[in-house]
Amino acid sequence: MKTIREPSKDTWASLCTRGTKPMKDLEPMVREVFNAIAEEGDEALRHYTRKFDNVEVSDLKVSADELSSAEDQVSEELKSAISLAKENIYAFHKVQKVEGAHVETMPGVSCWQTFQPIEKIGLYIPGGTAPLFSTLLMLAIPAAIAGCQEIRICTPPGKDGKIDPVVLYAAKLCGINSIYKVGGIQAIGAMTYGTKTIPAVYKIFGPGNQYVTAAKNYATQLGVAIDMPAGPSELMIIADDSANPEFIAADLLSQAEHGPDSQVILLTPSQNIIERVKSIVSEQLENIPRKEVASQALQHSRAVLFTDKEQIAEFMNEYAPEHLIINTQEDTFYKDRVRNAGSVFLGPYTPESAGDYASGTNHTLPTNGYAKQFSGVTVQAFLKSITFQEITPKGLEAIGPIIETMAAAEKLEGHKNAVSVRLDAIKKSKE
Amino acid sequence: MKTIREPSKDTWASLCTRGTKPMKDLEPMVREVFNAIAEEGDEALRHYTRKFDNVEVSDLKVSADELSSAEDQVSEELKSAISLAKENIYAFHKVQKVEGAHVETMPGVSCWQTFQPIEKIGLYIPGGTAPLFSTLLMLAIPAAIAGCQEIRICTPPGKDGKIDPVVLYAAKLCGINSIYKVGGIQAIGAMTYGTKTIPAVYKIFGPGNQYVTAAKNYATQLGVAIDMPAGPSELMIIADDSANPEFIAADLLSQAEHGPDSQVILLTPSQNIIERVKSIVSEQLENIPRKEVASQALQHSRAVLFTDKEQIAEFMNEYAPEHLIINTQEDTFYKDRVRNAGSVFLGPYTPESAGDYASGTNHTLPTNGYAKQFSGVTVQAFLKSITFQEITPKGLEAIGPIIETMAAAEKLEGHKNAVSVRLDAIKKSKE
Repeated sequence: MKTIREPSKDTWASLCTRGTKPMKDLEPMVREVFNAIAEEGDEALRHYTRKFDNVEVSDLKVSADELSSAEDQVSEELKSAISLAKENIYAFHKVQKVEGAHVETMPGVSCWQTFQPIEKIGLYIPGGTAPLFSTLLMLAIPAAIAGCQEIRICTPPGKDGKIDPVVLYAAKLCGINSIYKVGGIQAIGAMTYGTKTIPAVYKIFGPGNQYVTAAKNYATQLGVAIDMPAGPSELMIIADDSANPEFIAADLLSQAEHGPDSQVILLTPSQNIIERVKSIVSEQLENIPRKEVASQALQHSRAVLFTDKEQIAEFMNEYAPEHLIINTQEDTFYKDRVRNAGSVFLGPYTPESAGDYASGTNHTLPTNGYAKQFSGVTVQAFLKSITFQEITPKGLEAIGPIIETMAAAEKLEGHKNAVSVRLDAIKKSKE
Repeated sequence: MKTIREPSKDTWASLCTRGTKPMKDLEPMVREVFNAIAEEGDEALRHYTRKFDNVEVSDLKVSADELSSAEDQVSEELKSAISLAKENIYAFHKVQKVEGAHVETMPGVSCWQTFQPIEKIGLYIPGGTAPLFSTLLMLAIPAAIAGCQEIRICTPPGKDGKIDPVVLYAAKLCGINSIYKVGGIQAIGAMTYGTKTIPAVYKIFGPGNQYVTAAKNYATQLGVAIDMPAGPSELMIIADDSANPEFIAADLLSQAEHGPDSQVILLTPSQNIIERVKSIVSEQLENIPRKEVASQALQHSRAVLFTDKEQIAEFMNEYAPEHLIINTQEDTFYKDRVRNAGSVFLGPYTPESAGDYASGTNHTLPTNGYAKQFSGVTVQAFLKSITFQEITPKGLEAIGPIIETMAAAEKLEGHKNAVSVRLDAIKKSKE
């Protein structure tokens, strides 16, 4: 973890680059898998699962038996934790569902907006070293609140060809029965084209490795929407001398353990806290099982020092962190200046892992500086806004001439005529 | 305009295809222009404007003089129409700005959401046969309501190297002074990379031809967000015998005149209305200046008849029209069934051109079936949701064990430890 003191502005862009390695061009491979799925459907899914995951899957869909027996394999303690987390996530997302606008812009000209759920959605839940049931909760709960009718989950099978029972339990708890044992590029391809077993969807949500990211990017070119571009997870902490360095060190490591390409940034006005945190990080590192991963992440992580608070706030917004912990004597100063961030954690007793699991906020967030233009997942991401309008004859008499003038100025006489024929009819009806 | 009666479901997919010709692969050309802009900046913009638009542009930015003298060149009638349209658009979009959610999910666990404007945005305003000042209003007004700080406009210069004064007038009215004389691929490239004259933006809005669409698609791969994928404009009308066929014919033509690849669909339970509308379309066609364009659009347009109302509603949602006019005796029946559409116009006196210009709703809408998963432009499109949370020691004592259990189940001990060190500290502080 390198320390940089008072970096000049011309170095900020390079300081804001993430640890992400330039992605090699995966499009040829994505294209190959997608084309195979378009032609051979389920057979291609089985073929690439064999090839990439080294697993033989006969039934791509999780059976009702597998689903119902999952519950018995999850401890009561974990079930109870998941249930409480679900309640909190539900409570915070439920209030995000708002009524559409409704305005009579002129007498007789009524305009309004409704929100309709995206009918068919696909959730990608990564597999790998651990069953990410928390990601399933973060996507399935807002989808259900939005009212999406067809919710499907794709997740890679383990070496035994099965899905972790905790993932199945969480899915069932959220009312989802359509779960498919397929991951990686082939999962995204299946949800894009549809196969005999896995129906096509309109929008795909969820994180994944570089193959999944490349496949989601390719899917957008085929007309499927995605939640956001994905990248390795990251955390910025703004801390001063008032912060407990043990907390800061633990927070940095909680993010660093995600993956070797994760990045953590300590942003501070205090040289003292940098020294103390670095020392405690080395100690704590010895005690976490994912030490190897975290060590690699720390290599491209940084401590950045500015004595000027305004500079700290400016650098924070330029970095646009996915996660931002503010743990200072002047939390309000920094909080009020947050313009670009995914999710913000305030004060000494608000670790990032609270938002990762259970406090209620969503953990599917924009990385790699995308917080400048993307939101994390909200209920809104599962809805579309549709506008309506209804104009009375009186209303058209008022607004009609305005439309005619503007349409004529844009040389669109057909547009003008659609108003004129109506105004004529209104006139005649009065004669 | 071909008539199709009671089409069976297996033909619906083909009936829902648009008139869009398969886009030839424009990516090599887009890549060439983008690379040149990355290397040569403004020089490349001038070069490609010369090459593609056949115009020599020395000053890429519209001068203060050009901007201030525009007002004198716009008629009072048009100024007054634009001013009223602006008021209506403002009124409908202003109420879309909502407060973020704020919930205490558990005692001591506060979660909330704020909406922050995307700081740097670019608006693309197409040129071509007419000055599309209405599109400028539709994008600039919600951007201003959202509070975007840097709003830039790119629009292609006319053959005289100038921007139409109505466009400049509309921009000034919306408080925008940064307008650049550049269109097509090079405009999107400039806003993506930034040049000496044109700064880079975080999100690009606005319609355009197939070159602009391909360039916006390419920009997303370089980390710039876009409003939505674009395609030729389209209109579906649901009408029955109660509708005035003259109104329907005028509405169909108002859409058909947009471009040869526009599409209009008449969806109806009545053979009678099809016959009458077709006949009136032929008559009205003779009287609109853009007859040639409209005729071409009509060639791949359709009248579709179902006697069953439910089938009509189902086909409508399967088509997912950008614009939908409902002009029947049973408007409420159809209105209540709208699940996929961009903007809906109800009743006999609500022509689509009202929403194109002045009623208040936005006219930047999803085409080509994208209404299944995309919204039209709203104030929300210019904002990002950021979540915040603050947990008290008491709150962490309640939620901490839940987080620890879940993190351990996902084998992320570092996540668990960020909670454990805090719970230990709380415990010690009580001793």
